[in-house]
Amino acid sequence: MAFSFTVRSTDGAARLGEFQTPHGVVQAPTFMPVGTQGVVKATRHRDLEEAGAEIILGNTYHLLLRPGDELIARRGGLHRFIGWNRPILTDSGGFQVFSLAQRRVITDEGAEFQSHLDGSRYLLTPERATDIQSRLGSDIAMVLDECLAFPATHEAAAASMTRSIQWAQRCRRRLLELQAGPVAGVTVTNPGQAQFGIVQGGVFQDLRDESAGATVDIGFEGYAMGGLSVGEPIDQMYAVVGDTVGRLPPDAPRYLMGAGTPDDLVECVARGVDMFDCVLPTRNARNGQLFTSEGRINIRNARYAEDDSPLDPRCGCYTCRHHSRAYLRHLYMAGEMTAGALNTLHNLSYYLDTMRRIRDAIAFRTFDRFRLDFFRSASRLSLDS
Amino acid sequence: MAFSFTVRSTDGAARLGEFQTPHGVVQAPTFMPVGTQGVVKATRHRDLEEAGAEIILGNTYHLLLRPGDELIARRGGLHRFIGWNRPILTDSGGFQVFSLAQRRVITDEGAEFQSHLDGSRYLLTPERATDIQSRLGSDIAMVLDECLAFPATHEAAAASMTRSIQWAQRCRRRLLELQAGPVAGVTVTNPGQAQFGIVQGGVFQDLRDESAGATVDIGFEGYAMGGLSVGEPIDQMYAVVGDTVGRLPPDAPRYLMGAGTPDDLVECVARGVDMFDCVLPTRNARNGQLFTSEGRINIRNARYAEDDSPLDPRCGCYTCRHHSRAYLRHLYMAGEMTAGALNTLHNLSYYLDTMRRIRDAIAFRTFDRFRLDFFRSASRLSLDS
Repeated sequence: MAFSFTVRSTDGAARLGEFQTPHGVVQAPTFMPVGTQGVVKATRHRDLEEAGAEIILGNTYHLLLRPGDELIARRGGLHRFIGWNRPILTDSGGFQVFSLAQRRVITDEGAEFQSHLDGSRYLLTPERATDIQSRLGSDIAMVLDECLAFPATHEAAAASMTRSIQWAQRCRRRLLELQAGPVAGVTVTNPGQAQFGIVQGGVFQDLRDESAGATVDIGFEGYAMGGLSVGEPIDQMYAVVGDTVGRLPPDAPRYLMGAGTPDDLVECVARGVDMFDCVLPTRNARNGQLFTSEGRINIRNARYAEDDSPLDPRCGCYTCRHHSRAYLRHLYMAGEMTAGALNTLHNLSYYLDTMRRIRDAIAFRTFDRFRLDFFRSASRLSLDS
Repeated sequence: MAFSFTVRSTDGAARLGEFQTPHGVVQAPTFMPVGTQGVVKATRHRDLEEAGAEIILGNTYHLLLRPGDELIARRGGLHRFIGWNRPILTDSGGFQVFSLAQRRVITDEGAEFQSHLDGSRYLLTPERATDIQSRLGSDIAMVLDECLAFPATHEAAAASMTRSIQWAQRCRRRLLELQAGPVAGVTVTNPGQAQFGIVQGGVFQDLRDESAGATVDIGFEGYAMGGLSVGEPIDQMYAVVGDTVGRLPPDAPRYLMGAGTPDDLVECVARGVDMFDCVLPTRNARNGQLFTSEGRINIRNARYAEDDSPLDPRCGCYTCRHHSRAYLRHLYMAGEMTAGALNTLHNLSYYLDTMRRIRDAIAFRTFDRFRLDFFRSASRLSLDS
């Protein structure tokens, strides 16, 4: 089955949609748990299915380094290697090259860097990023883009944006070559793979507009906004998202990369975003930071030592159905890895439930009301500040 | 429901039995996964149920130190605190005092020691060990015994055995006091709790015989063999078990503490043992050491990097149904905690399946044949030596 996206209904700028992918259907707006190394940390795949995840994200940088894209291709692609049969999106590796790799040298050709694991050298070009994702066989591949640090000058942002457009053109060209016929040395493990372009330009709306126009001119199955949620004021991020969405074709999916908080999900759906990914629910869970309908909880806090109530009385996840705050605090304080597993299952359930409620609200055209209620609710507060 | 034990049938010295406990029925011979700190490491309770665990073990020493027996009593006992509704056996804390605690001083009164966590001081007497387990509310409590190091002289083993018998008398007396009526400061969270005595005496059969006789004279709901599987030659352990079982009443359950390998389970069932516990399946799993019907596997070994077969083709656990050796190796090498979880689920499934096969063999009076097949099978070999 080829990739397609259909907007089923709208409520203001918010959209209810549906992706068709070679590995099944995804309801939008959707949140993608981050499966960095071929697993969403501290979960088993069935936890994700139980929490309602319809698509996960894999990190090309990590998988390239370990166990290697060629090994994964020999296994038949990432889905078969990890035993996850639902859709997968892979990033291009660019973000980790800029945030994690050592001794990186960026030229127009691409990014040369050393592995943060063992110092071995890699060259990631737009063509290689496309080839690697072709071997991984994700349902949605991303173009290689340059990730700009925040803050950046207009000049630096412009130069970086221009380079990213050139890279996007090369990524698209390479994908079309791979689709046209066998390319020596590149195994295409998922012929129905889609490819998304990425709009860059920092917080400068003129650059974002130019980037959006050029990226749409190249033509992709979907469009992402990159280089946001990297330290800029939150209102600035919302403004850039709102303006940029208006430059993108209404019939294509829109993906805000690396965001965000539950607030960000609601606010950006309100501006027309269809897809999100973020390590926040999973990373926070492993640190004992939990999202609940009554506010955020730091489970290490002594006030929970004798608290027999569930983490979140409104949550139906395994953790909330079976365990008390007192027990979860004990597991965390005792250093038990089960703490990370139970907390992750809860936080992902909270995020994915929020997405479900968002979709329901759009379907019933009550999204404005939902948004207002959400921001009035206790869920935004910290109970342990 | 009070505690009882019924032998349903026998095959040679091997016994098929059934425990009734306040938290339900357990089929014997049984293996108890070790839930040190109120959780079997790297599992969720539903994993244990799925693997077929009918009873788990909790460590009094660890729970006393953190989160504390009084906190657990205020939650209604260990079952309610951890959300596990099936039977639990607790040890007395003695073994960890002897193996883990700091600056311990042992007198006839009891064991004074410092916590390995923060150096705080504790006094564990037979009465306190009984009180603590009364607060925890396990279905089976163990008497406090002195754990002898191996090797020990006959003189040292005799003195230690004698002290353990005195402690066992005090434990039993205290339990009867607690059962007779309220004792200030001690909450009895499980009135149907049973108490097992422990036969000591090192590897000296005359001391074991004396200890067994004295322990049976005191009178307990069941009898354990302690101080074995501590470094003595394996044939010596089997010999002590075989001889000691003959000194125990045929209608009471027999528990070999801290054992063992799959071989040990089969060999000691053959000698009339009904219960086992051991950290081997769970600890080995977290270290990548896996038990399979084809032999033991060290999943770190490079030979598994591109092995698409399941860990054990004869195993029906979640790990074996969904994942390849190649993926499990990747997760382990990448340091993902999911590796520990998937490996633990498999190793426990292997152990508990072995116990099921043992029970079937006794039921069909084919245990001798099973034992022979088991020792001829590949399951005892290491594939990575």
